[in-house]
Order: sequence, then structure tokens, then C-alpha cells
Amino acid sequence: MNIKIIITEKIKEKFTKEAIKEYDKRLSRYCKLKLVEVKNQNQLQKEITDKTYLILVNARGHLISSEELAKEISNLGVRGKSDVTFLIVDEEVDYGIRKRVDYHLAISSMDMDINILIIVLFEQIYRAYRIINNEPYHK
Amino acid sequence: MNIKIIITEKIKEKFTKEAIKEYDKRLSRYCKLKLVEVKNQNQLQKEITDKTYLILVNARGHLISSEELAKEISNLGVRGKSDVTFLIVDEEVDYGIRKRVDYHLAISSMDMDINILIIVLFEQIYRAYRIINNEPYHK
Repeated sequence: MNIKIIITEKIKEKFTKEAIKEYDKRLSRYCKLKLVEVKNQNQLQKEITDKTYLILVNARGHLISSEELAKEISNLGVRGKSDVTFLIVDEEVDYGIRKRVDYHLAISSMDMDINILIIVLFEQIYRAYRIINNEPYHK
Repeated sequence: MNIKIIITEKIKEKFTKEAIKEYDKRLSRYCKLKLVEVKNQNQLQKEITDKTYLILVNARGHLISSEELAKEISNLGVRGKSDVTFLIVDEEVDYGIRKRVDYHLAISSMDMDINILIIVLFEQIYRAYRIINNEPYHK
């Protein structure tokens, strides 16, 4: 599966860059994962194709468990959806993308700094693959 | 306010240690915050006194917004509760502490690695103080 995480803000914290590096390494066994920072609507639309299964992530989406996210990702694989994009977008920025969204996910009902949310999302994707593959969580 | 975060697992990730350092610095303006790693029930009980307002944190608690957490912390201040403890405890480990819990908080309905959850909690406490003090979020 090709997983893309699109963000509209720049990652600034050093600890976030290190966490991403760490989870990138762990996830490389399970999927192709790419983090993309877009600056405007034009760039965003280039990243989303007709084949993209688009998951919007913010505090207003569905609050699900790690097991349910694993099931969701597993089902996408079964349905042949091999391009999955998680989009973390500013509340203020719509980018005309809402109508295109296939699933609206919330990691938390709390608002999170992008530098934190991105770490949580990486870990949840990693956790999902561990669950799908019936592997114990600890690396 | 004196805030304590008690964990029963060791923080292993370097990125977590850096994130804690960063938020410790930011939070020093607002409260006294202490992170305590306990190894057993004995150590845990020494950390919790009669005055402690005890908040248990795991995926099974109340899912509230950042604004609601801010309100909760602000109310504790008003009620003269100056010792607040967030307890992140293994699901398997009860430590006989459940009955003592004053509030059961969930950051997410997803399970999170302690190394990630601790970063999220630090940020939410910081965010709460920014909200309480009517300050814009970005540092």
C-alpha cells in the first residue's frame, strides 16, 4: 500500500523530525509512506488523484479505536485501494477539498499541534500494521 | 498549581525526552510540573496524598475537547485543588488505585505508546494554560 500524509503546515520541531525518522524506519516493512508538505491548493490537488482514498484528519472526525483503524486499512487493501492519503489540514483552510473526502477521522477530540498530531498518526499507522499482521505491539 | 504526571513505564525514546524538555520549558511560566516514573504500587502510593486530585489517563476515559480540559484545570484552581496528578497506568496494572480516581480522562479512543501519549499530554496541559490565560496558541 502507498500511504501519503499531506500537511499544510511546516514541521518545525526537531523532536518531531526524529520521531518521523524512527517510525519511517519501522513502517518500511509494511508500506510505502510519504510525507508531503503542500503550500497551496494547487500543490494539494496535484497530490490527490482519482485513485486516492482520501482520509481527512482533525478533531471533528470519527473517533475510532486503534483496532478499528487497523480494520479500515485492512479493508482498503482488500478492496484494492492501494493509494491512501491522510490529509491534515488547517481548520481555516478548506482548499475546496471537503467534498472529495472519503473518510473523516479524528485521532482525538482535542486540538493538537501539527508537530504532535503527525507523531500520533505515524504511530497509529504503525500500530495498525502490527495489529493487521497479528504481531505484538512492542517492536 | 503543582502538576505531577506519573507513569509506570520507562520513557525510552530520545524524541520523547526532547519533547518533554521543550514543553517543560514552555510550561514553567504557568505551573510546577514533575514527571515521575514509578516501579511498583509502593512507590505509586507514596506519590499520591489525600490532597491529590487524581486524573487517570487512558483510552477508556472521557473524551473531551482542549477547551474542556482547560476549564477542568481552571475549575480545580478555583476550588483550591493545587495538587493535580495525571496517572498513566498500564491497562494490566491496577495498583488498587481505581477507586481513588477523581476523574477519568481519555486523550484518544486509540491506544497509544507511552512515549507518544506523554508528549500529547504535555502539549494539552500547555494548551490548557494558553486557553485559560487567553493567549494565542502559537508560542
